[in-house]
Amino acid sequence: MTDTPTTTRRGFIRAGIAAGGALAAAGTAAGTAARAGTPDPLITEVQDWASGFGDPVDATPYGMPIEFESHVVRRNVEWLTESPVSSINFTPIHALEGTITPQGCAFERHHSGAIELAKPDYRLMVNGLVDRPLVFTFEDLLRFPRHITTAFCECAANGGMEWGGAQLEGCQFTQGMIHNMEYTGVRLRDILAEAGVQAAGKWVYAEGADASSNGRSIPLEKALDDVMVALFANGEALRKEHGYPVRLVVPGWEGNMWVKWLRRVAVYDQAVESREETSKYTDLMADGTARKWTWVMDAKSVITSPSPQVPIRHGRGPLVISGLAWSGLGRIVRVDVSRDGGASWESARISGEALPKALTRFHLDIDWDGSEMLLQSRAIDETGYVQPNKDALRAIRGVNNVYHNNAIQTWWVKPDGEVENVEIA
Amino acid sequence: MTDTPTTTRRGFIRAGIAAGGALAAAGTAAGTAARAGTPDPLITEVQDWASGFGDPVDATPYGMPIEFESHVVRRNVEWLTESPVSSINFTPIHALEGTITPQGCAFERHHSGAIELAKPDYRLMVNGLVDRPLVFTFEDLLRFPRHITTAFCECAANGGMEWGGAQLEGCQFTQGMIHNMEYTGVRLRDILAEAGVQAAGKWVYAEGADASSNGRSIPLEKALDDVMVALFANGEALRKEHGYPVRLVVPGWEGNMWVKWLRRVAVYDQAVESREETSKYTDLMADGTARKWTWVMDAKSVITSPSPQVPIRHGRGPLVISGLAWSGLGRIVRVDVSRDGGASWESARISGEALPKALTRFHLDIDWDGSEMLLQSRAIDETGYVQPNKDALRAIRGVNNVYHNNAIQTWWVKPDGEVENVEIA
Repeated sequence: MTDTPTTTRRGFIRAGIAAGGALAAAGTAAGTAARAGTPDPLITEVQDWASGFGDPVDATPYGMPIEFESHVVRRNVEWLTESPVSSINFTPIHALEGTITPQGCAFERHHSGAIELAKPDYRLMVNGLVDRPLVFTFEDLLRFPRHITTAFCECAANGGMEWGGAQLEGCQFTQGMIHNMEYTGVRLRDILAEAGVQAAGKWVYAEGADASSNGRSIPLEKALDDVMVALFANGEALRKEHGYPVRLVVPGWEGNMWVKWLRRVAVYDQAVESREETSKYTDLMADGTARKWTWVMDAKSVITSPSPQVPIRHGRGPLVISGLAWSGLGRIVRVDVSRDGGASWESARISGEALPKALTRFHLDIDWDGSEMLLQSRAIDETGYVQPNKDALRAIRGVNNVYHNNAIQTWWVKPDGEVENVEIA
Repeated sequence: MTDTPTTTRRGFIRAGIAAGGALAAAGTAAGTAARAGTPDPLITEVQDWASGFGDPVDATPYGMPIEFESHVVRRNVEWLTESPVSSINFTPIHALEGTITPQGCAFERHHSGAIELAKPDYRLMVNGLVDRPLVFTFEDLLRFPRHITTAFCECAANGGMEWGGAQLEGCQFTQGMIHNMEYTGVRLRDILAEAGVQAAGKWVYAEGADASSNGRSIPLEKALDDVMVALFANGEALRKEHGYPVRLVVPGWEGNMWVKWLRRVAVYDQAVESREETSKYTDLMADGTARKWTWVMDAKSVITSPSPQVPIRHGRGPLVISGLAWSGLGRIVRVDVSRDGGASWESARISGEALPKALTRFHLDIDWDGSEMLLQSRAIDETGYVQPNKDALRAIRGVNNVYHNNAIQTWWVKPDGEVENVEIA
């Protein structure tokens, strides 16, 4: 288990695998002879029964993961930012399955730390170009019609180090600035309707109660579409670090806009052009200009297992390839997997429901012959968008940018089962 | 907040509300004048910005709920069982929203306590009428094709005290032996196929590694249909109290069959008729005979808010009625709500996805005029089954039984907003 990210070789294998034809012989169907669980002289004992009582039902009013899973936690990278109160940590996506991210291990991005805000102290102001400026308590928000939406939240900088090559080791550190939760809350449009948006209103400005305020401008059209003022996540109250008691959910758009500890929603006739949407969260192009308003998180995918933190320990034979795909434009309709660095592709199974703008799990069952693989996945969404490779993105955007890298990720699986983050053409 | 269940009046209101016609005037549309958030001279201040930094990103590698939510926990009832190692606690469904139940507050039912079982020590034996008796390690199970299913798990005794009338106070204690998670695992049929089920095999017997073993017989047809050997719940490893590292998921069927710490799956030509399916988990009828093999959890629903632990504190005006519905036979297609003890019904909104054999959230937005209500909900599933009232069930099954009570639940909402569990015709 790799717990600390290390710098890995950059550009190492560019097109290297094209010379090795061994992969073509690996086949795609799971073998019957080498199936896991075939009787093994080393493993014949049955699970013992417990010889005594376990924990009583009053032991843990609210439970935590068992001690054996203590490695499945959020991790940060000290050298990545100046201070841990304006920093990021990473979801352990390499160790998770399914589509839901538990709040307890879902990545955090704070600009001035996670603040403590009690419900009785909570207020939400709605003002600007509205007929009736209003202030809501938390209890007021509970009186609006409630809706449910499951959505991924991805930091715009997720995978950002990859623009310059394979620089971080570990699926968690490379692509772990993402989580996926089931939110319950109130549609922003219902709250805005209560205040009465004036005809001159074209933008909404959302800001949080943390010291950074993290203000972001959202076009009114999006605000009136699917933006939610969320009160619950995965069934329970939002956790402190996810904006307790109220955060904004902006499905499909970059995580920075999902304002936590939501304090104010103002209607204006233009964008505010705040710090977080000018000097930050804009895409610096090769010629030194910056693209702004690049909110949508385009279709993307990553193989979570095997990956640099999840080497293959069982040797050749049946192997489950598991990964995540998502698109800010709608549903994932197909995910392809390549074992030869993009020379050939096969379609994976989509497991469970493929909800729009939500993490979607894919699986591919192969019979691994023990030879090296350059594993890749590419997502296709309902708009027909196909996840591009790095060079295609770089040809347009250069390498100055740290945001909106949705390029295909490559894992080099070695014959001994170890996995490394590498860069290929 | 009522934290301890109390005995409440039984049979108190039988048909009492029929005399009160005030409810008919309450109307169904949310009012515009009394909408929450209208400017209030008592609430004009905006949320303050934080004056300092909050928690850094390395503060909590795995997070817990914020201290203000410490009342949202599993609770047990000491007098309900002889010992807390063979007992039950209850999900705080009154305080949750959406459909997912976090593992940390999902009800537990143990027959000899929650045992600690490390993955390296784990074994699953498959034997009986099979061509190849097999023993699998946890790593072996990870090599089978993985699937995802979201399913409710309801104890057969959920609501069991209600057979004899409204005896426990609180939605949590009355109907909280239920949870709903997204599971990832291996289909039992894929594991059985590896062992090779012989033609004489008609039943599967599953048992756990806890001291009780909790063995249950499952017809082969169900075992080969949608039964899952689950390795993950809500994205992460199963928690200790939910069967770490492996539990059985038997969608739509009573929770006792969802064997935890799964140790063995045997194929037999007949049912074992174990303790847990003869002296327990059979339905004692009025004539003293017992129905066995009543596995399916029929369609059911409950209003979680307002409820005895969630009184109305904001007075008249817009009120969100929120509840859960589910069916062991498939999808929920409609939920009706009555405010007058079943005399009249209106359809609620189904929020989010209505997945088969999974908890489904419904909401109804009303304009409460402050008069008393006898709140009920009834679920209708895709087979056309309509959730019955208590008397309809009692007419067939009597009142000796403690299992499989899926009758309509009644909350008496008083003019002061307090809510009581009551019994009506």
